Amino acid sequence: MLKPGNRVTLLTDFGTQDAYVGIMKGVIACFAPQAHVVDLCHAVAPQDIAGAAFQLAAAWKFFPRGTVHVVVVDPGVGTDRAILAVQAGGFFFLVPDNGVIAPVLSAAPSVDKIIRVENDAFFLKPVSNTFHGRDIFAPMAAHIINGHPLESFGPAVQDYDTSGFPAPVESRLSDHGREIEGEIVHVDHFGNLISNIPVSPGTSVVRVTCGDVELTTLQNTYAEGAPGALIALVGSSGYLELAVNKSRAADYPGLGRGKKIYVRYGPDPTK
Amino acid sequence: MLKPGNRVTLLTDFGTQDAYVGIMKGVIACFAPQAHVVDLCHAVAPQDIAGAAFQLAAAWKFFPRGTVHVVVVDPGVGTDRAILAVQAGGFFFLVPDNGVIAPVLSAAPSVDKIIRVENDAFFLKPVSNTFHGRDIFAPMAAHIINGHPLESFGPAVQDYDTSGFPAPVESRLSDHGREIEGEIVHVDHFGNLISNIPVSPGTSVVRVTCGDVELTTLQNTYAEGAPGALIALVGSSGYLELAVNKSRAADYPGLGRGKKIYVRYGPDPTK
Amino acid sequence: MLKPGNRVTLLTDFGTQDAYVGIMKGVIACFAPQAHVVDLCHAVAPQDIAGAAFQLAAAWKFFPRGTVHVVVVDPGVGTDRAILAVQAGGFFFLVPDNGVIAPVLSAAPSVDKIIRVENDAFFLKPVSNTFHGRDIFAPMAAHIINGHPLESFGPAVQDYDTSGFPAPVESRLSDHGREIEGEIVHVDHFGNLISNIPVSPGTSVVRVTCGDVELTTLQNTYAEGAPGALIALVGSSGYLELAVNKSRAADYPGLGRGKKIYVRYGPDPTK
Repeated sequence: MLKPGNRVTLLTDFGTQDAYVGIMKGVIACFAPQAHVVDLCHAVAPQDIAGAAFQLAAAWKFFPRGTVHVVVVDPGVGTDRAILAVQAGGFFFLVPDNGVIAPVLSAAPSVDKIIRVENDAFFLKPVSNTFHGRDIFAPMAAHIINGHPLESFGPAVQDYDTSGFPAPVESRLSDHGREIEGEIVHVDHFGNLISNIPVSPGTSVVRVTCGDVELTTLQNTYAEGAPGALIALVGSSGYLELAVNKSRAADYPGLGRGKKIYVRYGPDPTK
Repeated sequence: MLKPGNRVTLLTDFGTQDAYVGIMKGVIACFAPQAHVVDLCHAVAPQDIAGAAFQLAAAWKFFPRGTVHVVVVDPGVGTDRAILAVQAGGFFFLVPDNGVIAPVLSAAPSVDKIIRVENDAFFLKPVSNTFHGRDIFAPMAAHIINGHPLESFGPAVQDYDTSGFPAPVESRLSDHGREIEGEIVHVDHFGNLISNIPVSPGTSVVRVTCGDVELTTLQNTYAEGAPGALIALVGSSGYLELAVNKSRAADYPGLGRGKKIYVRYGPDPTK
Repeated sequence: MLKPGNRVTLLTDFGTQDAYVGIMKGVIACFAPQAHVVDLCHAVAPQDIAGAAFQLAAAWKFFPRGTVHVVVVDPGVGTDRAILAVQAGGFFFLVPDNGVIAPVLSAAPSVDKIIRVENDAFFLKPVSNTFHGRDIFAPMAAHIINGHPLESFGPAVQDYDTSGFPAPVESRLSDHGREIEGEIVHVDHFGNLISNIPVSPGTSVVRVTCGDVELTTLQNTYAEGAPGALIALVGSSGYLELAVNKSRAADYPGLGRGKKIYVRYGPDPTK
């Protein structure tokens, strides 16, 4: 059985201009004073499930085993969308059932439990219609940290919503090459354009296409790019990204969030 | 006697582009290494006492009993404005005497102590003229956490400044209805317009007026609003707010921070 | 021997729109669960070494002895620039060798050790080319907190790069006065223009010049300035700054980041 640690991470679209995140930390402290809360990111664009899914996929593994990862990017708050408590790959997750956890569960070595949270005995009463982060997610995270078994929160389910995160699509080509179609799901602080396409180290990518850009090499570092030239590389999270050395790929005309991107693996069709 | 916990919250107008908040945390750690510091919000507009007062009013109750709430939104820094150490409703507060604590003290079930901080033996020397957050508020918060009685900081006072927070004003109408005049004191990250008018659940509001907007229903959730339509509801902090489902009420023409808003309680004058 | 505390500070140019900072905290927690991590600032402009150097210089002393200060403002990531582990003035520092630590080492009462970090046994593998914050700085900070001697990380060195931080330059004048030439290295949240010129309390500054502005008095507080008038004062960090009471010096025409500023010490040339 996975033992909870004493760390909770928070990933929200709350921004930092309100006290909403601080209030969630207060509620967690009320129920689990021993918990250390770490901010993953609160600058997810409002209701941007795919962006949040990328952030979670980039971060979840780098915490101590048993950490509870909480995501409140939740356009369906106040409707009957489910909240899921998940155990997978040595971690706990508390997320709205909207696809935000899809890439983690695709990548996790094991998905051990998916529980639909229904037992409101654990909620902060009265539950508001507008701030489930405070009234449901925060107290539930504390209860997981306190060692309550996920099964006590509601029924186990098999399925979960995957619609919020665009999965990359693979095609086999007639020349025995493969092409993956994905899209830009995140623009980071440095203007790098990050896709939803995981690329393993050492694979023989032969072409990356995005808009009218076509690249035939993967670089290893940002510094390898000529000044102003767009490059493709595998970012620190293992996803393909487009970057410009000491500048912003996001300023390149025609590229941006949501743009389709294609990765082709050998043989090289141009030879 | 109220026992201090080991949590300190910080609410400032320092923003996050400087190390000012981090420095306050360093000073607190020097004097009270056991303290856990939680950021409430640092994006209060510079010197916006009413906005800070709203944030504090929304957050203070959601922390463990004995938490020390520190506010440094302090246009009078370096002048002779007082600093108050307050015990109320099971919490400690350390605030400039400028009205920022007014709505908390109106709502608190008990106001137990108001002390004017004068004993500079507890300050970090030399005290700068420009950064009392570091030199006075941070060490004093640590001393409260360490269990020093508030009385050791200075004389008890009865009065405090309420000028910085606009209190809502109630009028009785000739038809036996009541009207509350308030104003928009905060625009949150989602563009919701939040007023200074607390509304209890289940009260029979019959009309909300703000600029040329007139609404006759309180909704329960953001999702109940028709696309693009402005709605009124009681927000998660218990204050009346204006919102637009999946959009920003703040973009509605003529509405914004500081705008007057009126709430009328029955009987319904249109019937 | 300096005993490490259990505090780590982080100063980066990562911004807060990604999970990069949260990921660093996760890695630190994996190796040193007892560490408390404090955010100094993550809004340093991308690759702005001088701005980061100022923030570090303003903050380092205000933490408990033995705190580990980590700076990841690192335009050379992925190149062969060195990483330094430093012990000075009762604190530990982990920084890229690009000048970001120069003002601290100028001011510290003692510089005890400068170690070039080379022993990759302590790194998180595989080390990415793009995120040394996660793969090198975070685990190394944890190892310092855990009491590993700096000497185990690599060879001691005498020299360090000072190029990234513009040092103020002093000239002796023919009338026996002195003039210091510096520059504006930081614009804070309140629009104050902060220079790289440290000024001791009580010294007889007779003139401050910046662009076409000439000031002959140092004020003690922001409130001493006439409305709209630019003033000079010694800021809370001990550096000379330009400010406008209740407004933004940064909006003054012709002034800004990088602008030269001159401080003249007596005798007064105008008399």
